[in-house]
Order: sequence, then structure tokens, then C-alpha cells
Amino acid sequence: MSKPVTASVLIIGNEILSGRTQDVNLNHLATVLGDWGIQVREARVIPDVHRTIIESINESRTFFDYVFTTGGIGPTHDDITAECVASAFDVELIEHPEIAERIRQRPAPEDVMKNRLLMARVPDGAQLIDNPTGGPQGFAMENVYVMAGIPMVMQAMLSSLDGKLRSGPVVRSRSVRAYLGESTIASQLGEIQIRHKDLDIGSYPFFRDDRFGTTLVIRGTDPEELEVAAGEIMKAVRDAGEEPEDLGEDS
Amino acid sequence: MSKPVTASVLIIGNEILSGRTQDVNLNHLATVLGDWGIQVREARVIPDVHRTIIESINESRTFFDYVFTTGGIGPTHDDITAECVASAFDVELIEHPEIAERIRQRPAPEDVMKNRLLMARVPDGAQLIDNPTGGPQGFAMENVYVMAGIPMVMQAMLSSLDGKLRSGPVVRSRSVRAYLGESTIASQLGEIQIRHKDLDIGSYPFFRDDRFGTTLVIRGTDPEELEVAAGEIMKAVRDAGEEPEDLGEDS
Repeated sequence: MSKPVTASVLIIGNEILSGRTQDVNLNHLATVLGDWGIQVREARVIPDVHRTIIESINESRTFFDYVFTTGGIGPTHDDITAECVASAFDVELIEHPEIAERIRQRPAPEDVMKNRLLMARVPDGAQLIDNPTGGPQGFAMENVYVMAGIPMVMQAMLSSLDGKLRSGPVVRSRSVRAYLGESTIASQLGEIQIRHKDLDIGSYPFFRDDRFGTTLVIRGTDPEELEVAAGEIMKAVRDAGEEPEDLGEDS
Repeated sequence: MSKPVTASVLIIGNEILSGRTQDVNLNHLATVLGDWGIQVREARVIPDVHRTIIESINESRTFFDYVFTTGGIGPTHDDITAECVASAFDVELIEHPEIAERIRQRPAPEDVMKNRLLMARVPDGAQLIDNPTGGPQGFAMENVYVMAGIPMVMQAMLSSLDGKLRSGPVVRSRSVRAYLGESTIASQLGEIQIRHKDLDIGSYPFFRDDRFGTTLVIRGTDPEELEVAAGEIMKAVRDAGEEPEDLGEDS
């Protein structure tokens, strides 16, 4: 079995922490990276503050195989991600000739052009990430991938990385729904978890159709073991007098 | 001017990091706490792993005035938040008589009752947080507030804290929409930000009605200064040849 490949996500932006904007980038990153065999192990939502961004990048890039950041790469004063990444790696922020050339192709008054060219600044040594939508350029500095905050743009950048990242085993997920209280099968679940140490069994209570119930989610890399555990869980639900609903493998 | 009161949010749960569940608790917490005069300064999404939870709690509770956690307080094996909080504070996990009594009022087979009573365990010294929906009990250990992961339950718990927390100045938010590229007014925005050091001016590009534009968001505690800065921003947009849309104060 190959080693897991791990990632952390840094959501950079005051607008998420103020409640003004609902983040949806973490969910997209977790889903897509998971399908690619990269496991998101932590996420942080941090403000547009130099020291916080630099420290978070430096902590994350040593602990995880990859770091993905979203937000703060535009041309305004609050877009400080590129300079923070440069500081974190202790390199200069340079104007990237390829981005600058692309920006200069669209004419603009001198002052506007000067601001646009701020988006050509990347840390010295960075690799570019394609941005099929136009707009600010993403880049990768070693294992730190810097992307836009606008979901549509972030998703386009991410899709351009398909097949270009290192990957490990894909974690699959298998779900069973049961209309009974968690306490009714908690003991059995605990035993099943102990028998399958390589799996991660979660119990997520819900209220639906006027009834309480719980969704039992089994996650792991071995499809056969997932099936065995799902069978054991369904038996535990039947033993408790309810008919389980097999939701199969999550898509 | 009173001192800001700050908070961090810990979203505990593998289901958020796997992409299975879209978190909505951070947004609710940020909005409600913001209205109460408590500024969320950081959020972390962390897995159901003892060491990670304990370290995150201990880092956060020293840096911020409050810590709010969501998730992991049910009766199953993956509900480890209460024991992690106890470890973080180096106290025993005890069965709280008041919760246990409430749980015992609803009869159940012995094995089920034993599991239900797991939800009565809180760190020694914890204060209870009302849970008007029934179900697992929230609690506060010093400045760490431990709440459910199900949004409906978390929101009910949070609402029971209204008026019971320390608060600082409320950060207000004032927005102006402009159908022009960020680069066109980046210089002016930067100058306005320098003139108003106590405000936080953000520029959030969007694509809407087939046009690109940016929403300019001014945040700060002084309503008069917010108005002055909003006026300056609207002038900058007009100087660039566009009519700004005054979105007023965010509700």
C-alpha cells in the first residue's frame, strides 16, 4: 500500500471570518483532491494579516505534503498572498515576464496598467498555475499552491492541475442510513471500529421526514474491507430492529 | 473605545475535511458573534484525532478571548471532543449529575442507556450550555465553548448564550458596488486605506449580469468614519467614469 499524500488548505480572507461570505472552496478542494488521492487533513481560515499568513504557510508546508491557499491574489492593497508566500520562503517577489507580457496585451491607461502588473508578481522560483478564466495568475512555490478566492476561478485553476500532482491511495466512502438513535447502536459501532482499525467509521445524526436517524459513514482505502464493515453495520442496525438503507459508495 | 473581544472557531469533524459535508457553522458563528461584539479572528477545520484537537484547543484558548468548537459531542466512538477538552485542561472527565438525571428520565434498555450516559460526561468544572432541542449537551470550560455539529442544534445552543458573553465594539460593514475592474481604482483604494488606518477596506471582484465588477467593503467600529470612507470610495468610482451603487450598511 502506497503512503497517503496529505494536504492542508488555507482560506485567506477577512470576508469569510466576518461572515459576509460563505466559503465553498474548502468543500470543492476536499472533494476533488480526495478523488485524486490527496487527503485534506486540516484547513484554516485566516485574515488578511501578513504575520498570520506567513506563519500559517510555514507551519503547514512542513507538516503536509501539499498546501493549497485561496484568496488574496488580485491587484488591490488587501491582496497580500503573493508577498506573504515570498516572505515565508525568504525569496524576492519578482515580476514574472510571462504574466507581465500577457497583461500588457490588453491596453490600459498607465495607472491602471501599473496596478494590473501587480498581479504579475510571484515569489522568485514559482511555477505558474494556468488560469483558463483569465484574471489573476495562480502559482506554486515548492509544495504551496496559491489560487484565487473566487470559486469559479479557483475551480478552473484546480482543474488545470489534474494529473500533475503526486497522489496516494484514494479514500473511498460507503454509507448506510438508519432511522434509529445513535445510542442504540453505539456499542456495536465501537466494536466494529475496533475490528477495522484501518477504516474510519463516523456516525452523523440527522432529522428528516419527521424522524431522527443517523448516517453511518465508513471511509478507507480497501474496497473489500469497506464492504465487510458495511455488512456488519447493516447487521447491527437489523439486530436493533430497524431496516438499514444501503446508500452504497458515495459518488 | 473598549478593547476588541476576539474568538477562534474549531470545526471538528472528518466529514468536513473529506468534502462529504459543507460546513455552515463558521458562517453562522461569525455573523452572530460579530453582531454581539465578538470578532472571529481564525477558524480551523480539524479531524477527529485526539492530539490535533487537544493542541488546537490549547493554542487557541491562549491566543483568543473565546474558543467555540462544533462537532463530536454525541454518544458514539467518534465523539471525542469532551475528553479532548478535559485533556487540554488537564482535568477529569466526570458524569454531570444534572445531565445524567435528564437522560435517565427517558427510559431505555440498559445498553442503550449506558451509551446515552456517555453524553453526560463533561470536563470537571464545566458550565452547561442550554440545548433547547434536547440531544447532547453543550458546555463551557473556562473560555472554551463546546457545541454540537448539527447546524440546527448548534444554532439553538448559541442563541442560549445571547447576553451571557463578554463583548467589545461591534464591527460594522458598509458596501459599495462598482462595475469596473479592480485595477482601475486600486491606487485610489490603497490611498483611502492609508488615510483610514482603523478601517479595513476589502475589494471583492465578481461576475454578474454578464459584467465584471467589484464590491468594496469597508469594515470598522466608527459609523462616522465608515461614512466618510464610503463617500471617498464612491467619489473614486465616479472619477473612474462609473456610477457606484451604494449598498449601505450590511444587515
